[in-house]
Amino acid sequence: MPELRKDPIVGRWVIISTDRAKRPTDFLREQNKMKGGFCPFCYGNENKTPPEILAYRPNPNSGPTPAKNSPGWTVRVVPNKFPALGIEGNLNRAAEGMFDRMNGIGAHEVIIETPDHNLSLATMPDKRVEDTLWAFRDRILDLRQDKRFKYILIFKNHGEAAGASLEHAHSQLIALPIVPKQVVEELEGAKQYYIYKERCVFCDIVRQELEDGSRIVGENENFVTLAPYAPRFPFETWVLPKRHESAFENSSSGMFEGLAKSIKNLLAKANNVLDNPAYNLVIHTSPVQDPTNDYYHWHIEFMPKLTKTAGFEWGTGFYINPTPPEEAARFLREASVEQQAPVTA
Amino acid sequence: MPELRKDPIVGRWVIISTDRAKRPTDFLREQNKMKGGFCPFCYGNENKTPPEILAYRPNPNSGPTPAKNSPGWTVRVVPNKFPALGIEGNLNRAAEGMFDRMNGIGAHEVIIETPDHNLSLATMPDKRVEDTLWAFRDRILDLRQDKRFKYILIFKNHGEAAGASLEHAHSQLIALPIVPKQVVEELEGAKQYYIYKERCVFCDIVRQELEDGSRIVGENENFVTLAPYAPRFPFETWVLPKRHESAFENSSSGMFEGLAKSIKNLLAKANNVLDNPAYNLVIHTSPVQDPTNDYYHWHIEFMPKLTKTAGFEWGTGFYINPTPPEEAARFLREASVEQQAPVTA
Repeated sequence: MPELRKDPIVGRWVIISTDRAKRPTDFLREQNKMKGGFCPFCYGNENKTPPEILAYRPNPNSGPTPAKNSPGWTVRVVPNKFPALGIEGNLNRAAEGMFDRMNGIGAHEVIIETPDHNLSLATMPDKRVEDTLWAFRDRILDLRQDKRFKYILIFKNHGEAAGASLEHAHSQLIALPIVPKQVVEELEGAKQYYIYKERCVFCDIVRQELEDGSRIVGENENFVTLAPYAPRFPFETWVLPKRHESAFENSSSGMFEGLAKSIKNLLAKANNVLDNPAYNLVIHTSPVQDPTNDYYHWHIEFMPKLTKTAGFEWGTGFYINPTPPEEAARFLREASVEQQAPVTA
Repeated sequence: MPELRKDPIVGRWVIISTDRAKRPTDFLREQNKMKGGFCPFCYGNENKTPPEILAYRPNPNSGPTPAKNSPGWTVRVVPNKFPALGIEGNLNRAAEGMFDRMNGIGAHEVIIETPDHNLSLATMPDKRVEDTLWAFRDRILDLRQDKRFKYILIFKNHGEAAGASLEHAHSQLIALPIVPKQVVEELEGAKQYYIYKERCVFCDIVRQELEDGSRIVGENENFVTLAPYAPRFPFETWVLPKRHESAFENSSSGMFEGLAKSIKNLLAKANNVLDNPAYNLVIHTSPVQDPTNDYYHWHIEFMPKLTKTAGFEWGTGFYINPTPPEEAARFLREASVEQQAPVTA
């Protein structure tokens, strides 16, 4: 059973894998493990993942309904084969001298976004991107019924440099028994702004940025894509709903089409401007057991992995960004969404 | 002039380089720039850096005193040729609609730790490591007289994967007009613990860990090296003074010899266990304009760069660590400090 441990100074919880601990040589062997070979996420290999939790299979016009854990799906959700947290058990909290820990209870799932090994969110049809978003929502609605789970984190590591261990397009979901510290800070910051201004800070950002225009990457009826005013990373980009909504899973069903288009456009443009970068995509949303609120506004953050200076920033929380967001936004705004041949540097 | 910009939600200040902004193609070109060639930090190339701020030159027994910006030094401090912040000007604060910014005022210096291109803190003589620590102290004592500077950050990026752009051994110093958010959180966390317990949390950690032993890497008269209870990264290791002291630069002069030994031992062991990893080393200390206090305890954090999952953690503040600190500590504790031939994976 993995353990959740709390840093006694800043109060940050960390998952410590105690079962399959990595020894020093494991890190050396890990390099380049993505290259080639067998893929457990492709059609026909459904028995190489744990049994599916959810799959969308288009209704066949005739013939029998396709069996579970067989080909024919468009999006498929399975438990992570190497979960960071265990789904069974109680949340026992305990002291270890001055330190605090609890059982590593949680869910860790993989959302396989397409059966096609060669497609990505940037290149698959809009409707397929939308299916992935529906799968996110369905899984949150299911998991939030388990009251042990306080926060559900949905994220995507694309490319080896961004931490992906398999190249077939997929996202991950982690349901946590705590709300991560940085999420708490975002919620608290937004609440403070609301107390002071009686307006949502994200609504204010959307309004000011649309008026100003210099950091806008694109927009459609329901979403705006923009470079934030104080980005930590070059080409960091956010996608926000124009209308206030505190939780991703409470978005009205009409929203997902626009969101799919926004995400696909951003990723396609980033591929063209930044030569198919590795990236992380994270859904920032409210804790699942919280009621709807007026101060927090769910959104998606996109962080391409362009620099290697991470370690220093990790250690200090201090960021140096060599690309002003106005320039990043301009490059992305003006970029084509058509798939291009890779740039050679 | 670079700009400091504040994120309106969480209040994090970020440096945005506006002068020499990086365009998309700059990131592509940047790969492998460390390889080979001319080194501005070697003897004879002193005119290829900005003029030195400080250099230690052993007193010659006879003959003239060596000239500034010429060979003969053991440690040399120069302004960063591509500073993240500008040293001149006032801290003008201004609004940009709902956003806040100020001039990017600060100092950005490079501490060249040795004239020998092939040495590192892990392999140079103890006395040379100590000289580097003295240079850190001398620079802090000088810079803190400038009341615009609230925090002085000293860190080391070693190896390309950790963000180093030159391979010759060096550290960096950044003097900031603000205290970084994560430092504020550490100070506040330590203060809360002190209010509750009337003891320094770091003193408590040192005491409990020395008694327990399972996370201890090593110790000497004045310092203890340990794996923290809730480390974010595999093999994250801290070096703490045993006696309470809130600021690095206020350490009594007898301390630097022991600190040099602790750092050198840790790095030599990490080289043996982890096959010469890239790493970041950060001094965590009190804001330079603050008086001495009883609740914060300066220390050094060492983070080898072994995994690539950083992007996700950046976005969420949530960490999954595949190596329990007890195992990491055991590997380091039992490792030799002798230089070994590189491990082949």
